[in-house]
Amino acid sequence: MDTKVIDFIHTHRDQFVEQMKDWLRIPSVSALSEHAGDVRAAADWAVGELARLGFDNAGLRETPGNPIVYAEWLKAEGAPTVLYYGHYDVQPVDPIDLWTTPPFEPTVRDGEIFARGAADDKGQVFMHFKALEAWLSQTGRLPVNFKIILEGEEEVGSKNLDAFIAANKDLLAADVVVISDTGMFDRGVPSICYGLRGLAYCQIDITGSHTDLHSGQFGGALANPAFTLAQMLSQLKDRSGRIKIPGFYDDVEPLSDAERAEFKKLPFNEKRFARELGAPKLTGETGFTTLERLSARPTLEVNGLLSGFTGEGAKTVLPAKAMAKVSMRLVPNQDPDRIADLFAEHVKKIAPKTVHVEVTKMHGGKPWKASLDNPFVRAAAGAIEAGFGREPLFTREGGSIPVVASFQDILGLPSVLFGIGLPDDRIHAPNEKLDLGNFHNGVVAAAHLYENIAGARE
Amino acid sequence: MDTKVIDFIHTHRDQFVEQMKDWLRIPSVSALSEHAGDVRAAADWAVGELARLGFDNAGLRETPGNPIVYAEWLKAEGAPTVLYYGHYDVQPVDPIDLWTTPPFEPTVRDGEIFARGAADDKGQVFMHFKALEAWLSQTGRLPVNFKIILEGEEEVGSKNLDAFIAANKDLLAADVVVISDTGMFDRGVPSICYGLRGLAYCQIDITGSHTDLHSGQFGGALANPAFTLAQMLSQLKDRSGRIKIPGFYDDVEPLSDAERAEFKKLPFNEKRFARELGAPKLTGETGFTTLERLSARPTLEVNGLLSGFTGEGAKTVLPAKAMAKVSMRLVPNQDPDRIADLFAEHVKKIAPKTVHVEVTKMHGGKPWKASLDNPFVRAAAGAIEAGFGREPLFTREGGSIPVVASFQDILGLPSVLFGIGLPDDRIHAPNEKLDLGNFHNGVVAAAHLYENIAGARE
Repeated sequence: MDTKVIDFIHTHRDQFVEQMKDWLRIPSVSALSEHAGDVRAAADWAVGELARLGFDNAGLRETPGNPIVYAEWLKAEGAPTVLYYGHYDVQPVDPIDLWTTPPFEPTVRDGEIFARGAADDKGQVFMHFKALEAWLSQTGRLPVNFKIILEGEEEVGSKNLDAFIAANKDLLAADVVVISDTGMFDRGVPSICYGLRGLAYCQIDITGSHTDLHSGQFGGALANPAFTLAQMLSQLKDRSGRIKIPGFYDDVEPLSDAERAEFKKLPFNEKRFARELGAPKLTGETGFTTLERLSARPTLEVNGLLSGFTGEGAKTVLPAKAMAKVSMRLVPNQDPDRIADLFAEHVKKIAPKTVHVEVTKMHGGKPWKASLDNPFVRAAAGAIEAGFGREPLFTREGGSIPVVASFQDILGLPSVLFGIGLPDDRIHAPNEKLDLGNFHNGVVAAAHLYENIAGARE
Repeated sequence: MDTKVIDFIHTHRDQFVEQMKDWLRIPSVSALSEHAGDVRAAADWAVGELARLGFDNAGLRETPGNPIVYAEWLKAEGAPTVLYYGHYDVQPVDPIDLWTTPPFEPTVRDGEIFARGAADDKGQVFMHFKALEAWLSQTGRLPVNFKIILEGEEEVGSKNLDAFIAANKDLLAADVVVISDTGMFDRGVPSICYGLRGLAYCQIDITGSHTDLHSGQFGGALANPAFTLAQMLSQLKDRSGRIKIPGFYDDVEPLSDAERAEFKKLPFNEKRFARELGAPKLTGETGFTTLERLSARPTLEVNGLLSGFTGEGAKTVLPAKAMAKVSMRLVPNQDPDRIADLFAEHVKKIAPKTVHVEVTKMHGGKPWKASLDNPFVRAAAGAIEAGFGREPLFTREGGSIPVVASFQDILGLPSVLFGIGLPDDRIHAPNEKLDLGNFHNGVVAAAHLYENIAGARE
């Protein structure tokens, strides 16, 4: 590693923070139409920054929604090509009165910068900007070829991203995707996420009669859809937490000893975890640890229930309908479409003849996992160690990042999740912040990451 | 029976209907404060009518809410005293655009009078007014002593009635209560209701965590309150429809052979019943007929369910809370307080330690049943036969009429439910109506009822 690169980073720490504030000040809330101009201004700001760093073809690529920022630097002949993905839009800020300082007046307190978008995702994107600037300003080059896309609709479902990727396969051709839109395991515990769960989301609608009926007049002689729904839901998992849908586990890849060993390394206090969530007692699938249950095992959760009278007080209604939203988190190699089919089939099978049952498949996402031996994962691990002074732990996350599946499916590209957020960064909530220690270490780590990738080949 | 009384009724049919319209025109909607003046006007109208008939002390008795109409005729020395109960307030009329003719412009079509309050309850009260008028105008007397109270808050929970009854025990002292606020079994099938179910209504609130959580990030490692609620609810009844709360059936009076024989006499088409309700298939407690299940057996129904995300689409939330409203219909001699206690105790017992469970007892009402041999029931049966030309069948109803329990508990009085509504009268719904054939037969029957009561002693 060229020491000038790292020296530049160390000597410009305060300047980086001041520059980051400029971007954070732009209220690029994609969910609210009154911020449409701000969203575009945040995109323009990124284009200007990338052009200033020396990127080529920096500009906005229009979509039916918000534009995608694109820029490239392709002068590292023979080196791998990185496709960097991030997003410049942010979540709404309500409830605004819970913010200690205004969400778009970035403020540093106790080594953390408070602003909407500080962690999710402008601050993390900006970390890479600074690593790229260090390379380009100090050596006149990057160790890898580099393409960057920044989306403006991540917080509203990325509805135009897949079509953009599919329509620009050549433009986006690369060897690996780098994303910094996640967190590390805990403060002082840098980590690399190598797996994400998928999702199959369904809705069950049960109808027992044309209209709501009086529970006195009609109760006792026909099925109660709410009770029937409860009976059916309770049959979906057994007492050991195992999902009872036939075929559900067929494609589940067992946890390897190496993976279970990685889980064991993670510092985790069950009691503190339960206490912080307010859960009286943890529970889950028998035979697995809490961390394994949280990310490496499939789940079935009821996300919503609605039937009959739900206001204050008592209304003696025999509901005509009952509804449940049920979603399943999936692990490799479960397929969301197949799981949704198995779910629908099973629900229909256990439905009594006393009600009509409808199952709607809402949406799904594939699970994702990189091999722990993947050279890009190893490159990232080395970079983290260089930036944070500590070998990263390997984690899996319980949620989904649909874009990771998109890059895998559409471009055939592996992703490296290089996130430096902390569990208490309050993304999507009031007082979002980013730890500046993590940010500065992250700039160093990112500078190393690109050099390490230059030496890696999958 | 004095033929002059019956002749008077027969020769004034059209006049009665026109007079009834005057009362129906007053929009005495107790639920809406903008109708406060109309509610009082409807009360005043009844006072004027009772005074005109020759009743004494006709006037309004004030309560903290709407006034109670009171009047009396106590000149039948040595004869029993009837306490008549009815209500002059009506339900709201929304959705107003579903009415064929305006709810407060009473309109006769095909032998039925359409108006809000036609069946519930002004039309049925007015039927008694006309029977009383026939007696008083043609014979100068009533066969019984008579006290009448008409409430103005029946449609908003009768919240001041019990206190009024309790504070006026001497004023209201009587031998029997007569109420016409129910229906007959079917068109052409006059009936007398001799039993009502009671009610115990509870709410279950389950909490699994401080706040809603992300179902990807946290799903699998702690209890899902919605799923836990489903599991708990499903344990409250077994596959044969029997309620599994220990002690629930302890006080249930078994159905006698005589009662089961009465049920068998009722004309009832299961297939039509199911089709009209839109129920794919009837179901209920094993060992009982549909009619028995509907009124003579206790039930447990889920009245409402709420948890997590219930809007359109998919939100991957692990809900913090789940709520169910659960009510039980009770039969003699179950006690609502005891049943609510047994319910709460059992729910807490089957609750897993992974969640917090709270049970709130909402409200209750006692079940009621008259003996089929009760002389007042027999008096009513004879009156119905005289008015409708057909012996009545004996029915029980599945719902509750709290005032029946109040008269029993506070005054120690039996009630005679002398209802002439039809199942398709659409009370509480648009296009409420009253069958005029039933009305005219009902006036004759009411005239007989008071003569029959004069000859009856419990």
